[in-house]
Amino acid sequence: MNYTYQVLTTHPRQNQFEVEALMVCLRALADCAQSCATCANACLNEPAVDELIHCIRLNFNCADVCLATARLLSGLTGVNVVLWRSQLQACLIACQVCSEACSRHAAYHKHCRVCAEACRQSELACHNLLATLTHL
Amino acid sequence: MNYTYQVLTTHPRQNQFEVEALMVCLRALADCAQSCATCANACLNEPAVDELIHCIRLNFNCADVCLATARLLSGLTGVNVVLWRSQLQACLIACQVCSEACSRHAAYHKHCRVCAEACRQSELACHNLLATLTHL
Amino acid sequence: MNYTYQVLTTHPRQNQFEVEALMVCLRALADCAQSCATCANACLNEPAVDELIHCIRLNFNCADVCLATARLLSGLTGVNVVLWRSQLQACLIACQVCSEACSRHAAYHKHCRVCAEACRQSELACHNLLATLTHL
Amino acid sequence: MNYTYQVLTTHPRQNQFEVEALMVCLRALADCAQSCATCANACLNEPAVDELIHCIRLNFNCADVCLATARLLSGLTGVNVVLWRSQLQACLIACQVCSEACSRHAAYHKHCRVCAEACRQSELACHNLLATLTHL
Repeated sequence: MNYTYQVLTTHPRQNQFEVEALMVCLRALADCAQSCATCANACLNEPAVDELIHCIRLNFNCADVCLATARLLSGLTGVNVVLWRSQLQACLIACQVCSEACSRHAAYHKHCRVCAEACRQSELACHNLLATLTHL
Repeated sequence: MNYTYQVLTTHPRQNQFEVEALMVCLRALADCAQSCATCANACLNEPAVDELIHCIRLNFNCADVCLATARLLSGLTGVNVVLWRSQLQACLIACQVCSEACSRHAAYHKHCRVCAEACRQSELACHNLLATLTHL
Repeated sequence: MNYTYQVLTTHPRQNQFEVEALMVCLRALADCAQSCATCANACLNEPAVDELIHCIRLNFNCADVCLATARLLSGLTGVNVVLWRSQLQACLIACQVCSEACSRHAAYHKHCRVCAEACRQSELACHNLLATLTHL
Repeated sequence: MNYTYQVLTTHPRQNQFEVEALMVCLRALADCAQSCATCANACLNEPAVDELIHCIRLNFNCADVCLATARLLSGLTGVNVVLWRSQLQACLIACQVCSEACSRHAAYHKHCRVCAEACRQSELACHNLLATLTHL
């Protein structure tokens, strides 16, 4: 996401520190959202699809919550910190429960193993961005 | 949203009580999301747009969070209650802060006055659905 | 979607004729998007889920395309007609193929029967709004 | 988007050629969507915001259409080619008109210059993926 980074750094009210933490989070959220959407569709093609229903549902949930969170974070300034914090917290949980669900099938389905890792990275990025918000 | 209601009541694992509370919430979220998106665009057409920037941003935030929450609630069963609760909490806050921002312009812009009310209804619906989840 | 209608009619650059056609379409798109998301999740709970994979996927596709189209239509004025037309055309197709897929299971799954009807209404609303755009 | 790529290549019905073209497109769409959302918010912070209204609106439109298109493309197999083609065509137009709008402010606002380039890359990626679909 090279263009996103360049747009962030040419924002009229930039703050370099926030930009770096934000960029890591935006990257992780986009990768997680797309990994989850793709993993859900891969699960739908597996012969044992009936064992993957819970995983498919959490994959779609996680993708939706990550995208909404990324959109919120695009605001950058004039931010409502209580709202940011609350949505990041919800996103962190979405990533966590999806990562756990995917992990259970990691031994059988490579896409679930990779997706679980994408969710963990996204969870960590939300956690780290939340930590920088405690000063606000 | 007549079709949505009919789909909800023909779901293979329906629960009438939840369905009613859910339907009120889904209706409120859809109306709030669309009202916010339309209000943001109406604000962009106002001559004093520079005084409405904060409102425009929160309008878009609220629309995005409402739609992601509605999508999550579409799962119905096999739900992860911790995730539902957390996302409903974030949505309640998004509606609250957007309602407050729109209220400040209610005397000058009718669309902001109506949108503030749409947000309050959506906030209330999230609050009520959260109350039914405490038993789970 | 009472609030949405009120916001539309208090827009600073309203046009009553467009507002009515737009409102019918926004209502249909919201109902279709939510019906599809709920139907997809209902399908995921059916014992014969493996026969419904194609339907589940088109349900999610249709929901996503309807929501993006509704968001685009929230712009109201200053519109790029070529873009509106192209997205409405894509949405019309999404509704059409989802309606066809759901119809095939209508005899066995009531939620698919209702969802097929929601898609048809949404397809029709897009078609009618497209017809009003030919004059622009 | 490393995880997305790994999920794509471990999909049960992969097709290496499609995967590469798809991956380029998914990457471009995610970068474009986030660049547009961030550029819209940057525009909202510019002193001359009233001259950027058209650009802000097309930025949000482009972000919404790109995300819906990316979600559609996540289906991978069992695809409805007519729907894919139609949505990719709408997305191509969304990128094109947003790129044109941003280009007009490129001399004054760096974020618009970068965003215009992100849109052009996304438009090109949609064009190239459309070309591979003609064989289907």
